[in-house]
Amino acid sequence: MYFEDTIAAIGTPVGEGGIGVIRISGPDAPALARRLVRRGNKNGDFESHRFYYGAVQDPDTGEAVDEVMAVLMVAPRSYTMEDVLEIQCHGGYLVTRRVLDAVLRCGVRLAEPGEFTRRAFLNGRIDLVQAESIIDVIRSKTEAALSLAQHQREGRLSERLNEVRRLLRHGLALVEAFIDFPEEEIDPAAQVEIEAKVRQALGQIEELLDGFDEGRVLRDGVSVLIAGKPNVGKSSLLNTLLQEKRAIVTSVPGTTRDIIEEVVNVRGLPLRMLDTAGIRETEDIVEKEGVRLTLEKIPQADLILFVLDGSRPFDDDDRMILDALSGRRSIVVVNKRDLPGLLHLPGELEGMRTVDISTSTGDGIEELRGAIFETFIHGRAIDSREYVALSQARHRDALEKARGKVAVFRDNLSLGLDLEILAVDLREALDAVGEVTGETTPDDILDMIFARFCIGK
Amino acid sequence: MYFEDTIAAIGTPVGEGGIGVIRISGPDAPALARRLVRRGNKNGDFESHRFYYGAVQDPDTGEAVDEVMAVLMVAPRSYTMEDVLEIQCHGGYLVTRRVLDAVLRCGVRLAEPGEFTRRAFLNGRIDLVQAESIIDVIRSKTEAALSLAQHQREGRLSERLNEVRRLLRHGLALVEAFIDFPEEEIDPAAQVEIEAKVRQALGQIEELLDGFDEGRVLRDGVSVLIAGKPNVGKSSLLNTLLQEKRAIVTSVPGTTRDIIEEVVNVRGLPLRMLDTAGIRETEDIVEKEGVRLTLEKIPQADLILFVLDGSRPFDDDDRMILDALSGRRSIVVVNKRDLPGLLHLPGELEGMRTVDISTSTGDGIEELRGAIFETFIHGRAIDSREYVALSQARHRDALEKARGKVAVFRDNLSLGLDLEILAVDLREALDAVGEVTGETTPDDILDMIFARFCIGK
Repeated sequence: MYFEDTIAAIGTPVGEGGIGVIRISGPDAPALARRLVRRGNKNGDFESHRFYYGAVQDPDTGEAVDEVMAVLMVAPRSYTMEDVLEIQCHGGYLVTRRVLDAVLRCGVRLAEPGEFTRRAFLNGRIDLVQAESIIDVIRSKTEAALSLAQHQREGRLSERLNEVRRLLRHGLALVEAFIDFPEEEIDPAAQVEIEAKVRQALGQIEELLDGFDEGRVLRDGVSVLIAGKPNVGKSSLLNTLLQEKRAIVTSVPGTTRDIIEEVVNVRGLPLRMLDTAGIRETEDIVEKEGVRLTLEKIPQADLILFVLDGSRPFDDDDRMILDALSGRRSIVVVNKRDLPGLLHLPGELEGMRTVDISTSTGDGIEELRGAIFETFIHGRAIDSREYVALSQARHRDALEKARGKVAVFRDNLSLGLDLEILAVDLREALDAVGEVTGETTPDDILDMIFARFCIGK
Repeated sequence: MYFEDTIAAIGTPVGEGGIGVIRISGPDAPALARRLVRRGNKNGDFESHRFYYGAVQDPDTGEAVDEVMAVLMVAPRSYTMEDVLEIQCHGGYLVTRRVLDAVLRCGVRLAEPGEFTRRAFLNGRIDLVQAESIIDVIRSKTEAALSLAQHQREGRLSERLNEVRRLLRHGLALVEAFIDFPEEEIDPAAQVEIEAKVRQALGQIEELLDGFDEGRVLRDGVSVLIAGKPNVGKSSLLNTLLQEKRAIVTSVPGTTRDIIEEVVNVRGLPLRMLDTAGIRETEDIVEKEGVRLTLEKIPQADLILFVLDGSRPFDDDDRMILDALSGRRSIVVVNKRDLPGLLHLPGELEGMRTVDISTSTGDGIEELRGAIFETFIHGRAIDSREYVALSQARHRDALEKARGKVAVFRDNLSLGLDLEILAVDLREALDAVGEVTGETTPDDILDMIFARFCIGK
């Protein structure tokens, strides 16, 4: 086993609920089970993977802290591959803390965020891509994001990366064979084989990189601003989008005032609606002020829904907003199509995607949803069981580095440069892919990755 | 077993966390385990109380929903005394719902709030007092409240109530012995014995009723208003109380805007601070308006901390508040005792408990905490392991009814009334105590009790 100390944390979310779980991992877990969990008349060792009824007792006073179910999972058959003790107690805020406190008073250390998963990674049960996907599984806000994360957790992305590594290693082995015999020229058949492996690797790297934009937006969602002068129906549009298919509204524990984000789920794509409070407030204020506030928000959005009132002529306020949209990803939404049309779209709007809607009748909303989705997702079957995509900037950066190195190697190989020099690029490419899966990831990067986790995972 | 249908719910709190638990109880649980949980190459029955690694599969498509640990607890060795399946999955909002959804699509019904505990009660594993205490364990906001709830959960209050019932039943049996032989006079020795049993029962009922006020405030906390004209230091006092020993700030999930209550823990007594936002807002507004707002809140509080500024003379604003305190439980808090004293307390304040403090230096705060505590708790060792108290109005009401009936019986017995008539009162007293422990509790009361629970417990 990798670690000598034993860690503990509450594994369940903070709050009121029926069940709380305290998770303990490390070499002291079996002794802790015997010391802390009283099981009626039973004594002695805990059988691995047996679910025992009992009570956690205070290590100092012996008083019962709570009635619990406890299970010891003996290494390596556990989440971390270490000895793991899990204690299920009542799920209140205070009672779970009291049980944790009893555990900590036995000399066990409070776990850092993500430390259980970090151990699972360092002990070799999962690779780094799988480890990172676990927090994505937990945080997913739409089914599509969850599927993507689950596929990564199951190792489907890792398989693709391992195939790239296998190809690069194969190429490198062939190169190194000639380095060991510097007097010999590279054999043309071997050179063809090296070129083939490297081309295949490059092709796979590029395919993964091509999928990144989609993977990223599925995972992180996109920020959407509903822009428009007052009284065009921004607020109604927001409500229509929210009502139809409201995505998860999460409260983030640990903040004094919980942050509530309004997230709209458009065919699996999570839209984070920017400044929804602002929309509601500004809908009734004087026009100029409302337009100014809208203009300020435009640079923050991945997509702007530029709402126009189909029953009023295009005016200077609309134009001010239109001018600010230049170079931004936008969809023109013409609302109030149920009223007599007095809007004539100016020529500048011609190249832009335009959708007619009526928030009163609901007409056009489905088309708008399609237009939003297609802005980011291009025909790939994101709900397929085979869908695998890069979704993290860290992975993209490492693979771009790998792509660069492999391309340099390929070019230099065709120029007939010294093999020993060529091998350096190929090794660096291999390391770059290894940074994604965790073989060659520096500790400070690991620290950053696991700091994003919740405690107890 | 009592129930023919199988129920399921998420047992862990709503939110992000490492672990989510889905709990299933009822006769279909073993079949559900076999159908839903794929355990590598393992097939066939789940051994009871064995913790299996596996994956929950979609009942329609067979696709993996999440990797899980699953444990089947065969009746009667479970929380509900029924067959129970528990599935531990990843702890995210969406992923726990997907696992629950897979379970429900197998024809299992979503559990009502508290339904697992209700089954534990109806199947006879715990009595009603214990069942009710479980939600108190989960909701406890201070150590003292938690201890009280745990003692009730362990059955210590039930033992006391059962002793009362035993005494009443004994007395009733003696009475009924004579009813069966109406020609005989009641034997004086038997009458003495009946009187003794009834006196003991009455004594124990009264002791329990005496503890109710303390039990109630420990369980529910007390509402406290910090009252005073602007700029006497209400806001500083609130912050001092909150900082020193901040109790749990819970966010209540399921509300659009999470409600955050500021609770101060004073020696185990939870103080719910009323209108803390109001305090912060009104500290700076014009005096009259601030005083008016304070006056409005006074009737809502269990205790008023009437804050005076020790560096300013007693004025008309202070007097207006003082007049409104008449008949209310209050403590006079003289703040700014570190500044030159210009306050002379008027005669009306003489009978009131007064504490001098300085929120700048912290002087007097501990004394104030003591004064608050002693207002509600009178010298009983609430942190003792033996501390048992009534804490629910329902229990108090039933015991008061029992006390009345027993007293009537006792008086009528000494008057030599007809035994058959006497027995009615004794039986009603017995039933009243049985309503507390659940033997004779009507279904509509049970509905009310378990509706207070969270889902999944």
